[in-house]
This record gives sequence, structure tokens and C-alpha cells, in this order.
Amino acid sequence: MNYPQHLIKLIDVLKRLPGVGNKSAERFAFHMLNWPNDHLHEMARVIHELPAKIQQCPSCGCLMNLEECVFCRPDRLASQTLCVIASPRDAFSIEGTGEYKGLYHVLGGLLSPMDGFGAERLNIMKVKQRIQQSQVLEIVIALDSTLEGDATSLYLKQELESLGLPISRLAFGLPIGSSLDYVDGGTLARALSGRGKF
Amino acid sequence: MNYPQHLIKLIDVLKRLPGVGNKSAERFAFHMLNWPNDHLHEMARVIHELPAKIQQCPSCGCLMNLEECVFCRPDRLASQTLCVIASPRDAFSIEGTGEYKGLYHVLGGLLSPMDGFGAERLNIMKVKQRIQQSQVLEIVIALDSTLEGDATSLYLKQELESLGLPISRLAFGLPIGSSLDYVDGGTLARALSGRGKF
Repeated sequence: MNYPQHLIKLIDVLKRLPGVGNKSAERFAFHMLNWPNDHLHEMARVIHELPAKIQQCPSCGCLMNLEECVFCRPDRLASQTLCVIASPRDAFSIEGTGEYKGLYHVLGGLLSPMDGFGAERLNIMKVKQRIQQSQVLEIVIALDSTLEGDATSLYLKQELESLGLPISRLAFGLPIGSSLDYVDGGTLARALSGRGKF
Repeated sequence: MNYPQHLIKLIDVLKRLPGVGNKSAERFAFHMLNWPNDHLHEMARVIHELPAKIQQCPSCGCLMNLEECVFCRPDRLASQTLCVIASPRDAFSIEGTGEYKGLYHVLGGLLSPMDGFGAERLNIMKVKQRIQQSQVLEIVIALDSTLEGDATSLYLKQELESLGLPISRLAFGLPIGSSLDYVDGGTLARALSGRGKF
């Protein structure tokens, strides 16, 4: 005894969501069978319109409504600082801190040869062009503190050094609110070596 | 700084999925931004067509393709056993065992006054009519072994006893592959009181 054909199809498409396996997709699908029609139609419409309604800014790579990119407004161009990030989502995280008001550049991924993401896909020429055209005076590298993030940061540093601009990177250390008992050795070592005047 | 309007809308509709909060919905939404357009359009189409392609059988309440209800075929009508279940999904679970070949009746929920699901919504009259029309000779109650499931089973028993048919209920006991060390006291007590000849 199998599920009806269309239910199998629904489960298959739901399994494309990250972290959703067969069990979760089945749970979602059976839940959706109880939804009112207008909820289903609304969800279908929102998903269908996604590519038309949200695009990546051709200049910085951040997400934009169709009208304009809020990350490329004139007041930001004046800041002369460029923050290099891996994905459009990171711009929202950094904006959330309220600590940064400069420009962004989205790489679109991190170096990861195993996943077929090599240096050529980072499009380093575009980063350099952008830096020159926007008259940037400082470069901030804001990538993950993972193996891939570290490798990509190092690669960017080597490639961009020739421009002669100051390049900085996010600080490593204790996360706020953490106890030394629970912090891993690597983090503690970086917090020690990076200790600052108090 | 907020997400683009359409992204907020997408996150909102994804949050209607069971067990999906703000964080998971954001994760899904940002993942979907990287999907090719045809994946998005396919998902939208499948969701949009759901109410038209899958319906509940007007007789038994199970899910059916538009052509016919596989749970109401003539060979099943001949079995003269009716299994009462809470949701259409349960029929697939029971079919998966290969141990049952009779008819089903979907209640659509369990008694749960706190959630506004009282006896009137179980539509006991429909169960009785079905039993009489289908010339059923045995009733199997297959509901959850929870507070709501027990209450509903008891209510069904009281209501259906007057028909004079044998009423059985799923057995309680040790789940297969379990160790006594890890089985809760309630389950062990039911396994003891329901012990069978060996």
C-alpha cells in the first residue's frame, strides 16, 4: 500500500529543504493536508514568486527588493569600508549588530575543493574591481571561523594585499556570556593570544 | 535593517509547518533562495494542486486519488471488519504491517476538550450508520495509547456496545526490540496484566 501519487510528489519536494528527511517531510505533508485551501494557495504563490520578487544586487550580491539595494545607498558608498561576506544572509546578521555602516561584498561561498568550490568561483577579480571603483579605504573580512572560512580569509588576504589597503578580520575570543569551563581549548588559546589592554 | 518584504512573507508561510519556528523557517527560506527556478515553481505547483489532487474518501475518510478509494474496494467490503482510526495517516501505518485487510473509519481526531474537540465532532452517528450499512461483524479500535486516545476508545466502546458486535482494541505491551531496563512502569504493568499463554 503506497501513498497517493501526489502525496509522494509533495513529500519529495519537501525533502529538498535543508535538514528535512523522509520522516519530517511526511509529517509536513500530512499536516498540510489539513490546511485550508487558501493557506496552500498562498504558500504556493509566495514560493512561485520568489525568484521574481527577490534578486541579488548585481553590484554587491546582497538581497534586494526590485526597486533598490539598501546596501548600496549613497550614504554607504561614503563610508569607504568594504566588508567581505560569504552569503547574503550574513549582511543581515552584521546589520543586526548596529556596529557597521559600510559596504558589503558577497562571495557566494567559501573555498571548499571537496564540494567543487575552488578559488575560481570566488571571482576575486570582481572584488578587486569593486574595491577600486568604490574608492574603498579599508577591507573587513567577515567569514566563518571554520576550516573553509579560515582558508578563504587567508586566500583573500594574499590576493588583496597588493592593493596596499588595511585588511582586518573579525576578532576571535570568548563568546559573550560563556563560562571558561565550557569554552573549547582552541577558542581559549585565541582569546589569550589576542588579549587586549584592559 | 529588515529582510526584503517577500522574504518575510515566505518565512511566515513556512512557519505554519509543524515544528518549524522562526529559526528553521529562516534557514529554509535562505536555502530556497539558492534553488533553481524550476525547483521553486515545481514546489509551488505541487502545493497549489494538493486540494484538487488528494481528497478524503466520503465513505471511510481515508486519502484517495480522484479515481477511487483503495480502502473501500469490494474485496475489503467482504472482510466484515471495521478498524476505527484517528487520522488518514494511520491507515497507511496499519497497511504497512500487512496484518489487516479490512475496512477503515477515520474519526478525524481524538476527544480533547481542551482543544475544542468534543464528542460531537467525532460524529458517532456516522460510525454507527457505516457499521450497519457495511454489515460489519467486528470492530477494531486502533487509537493512540495516550490520555486522549484512551478517553476516545472508552467513549467509542460505550457508544458502540449497544450494537452487540465484538469490539477489540490494539494490545498494550513491550515494543519489539526493547529492554526491560528502558521500558516505563506503565507499559510494563500493562504487559504483565495482559500476559498471554506461551
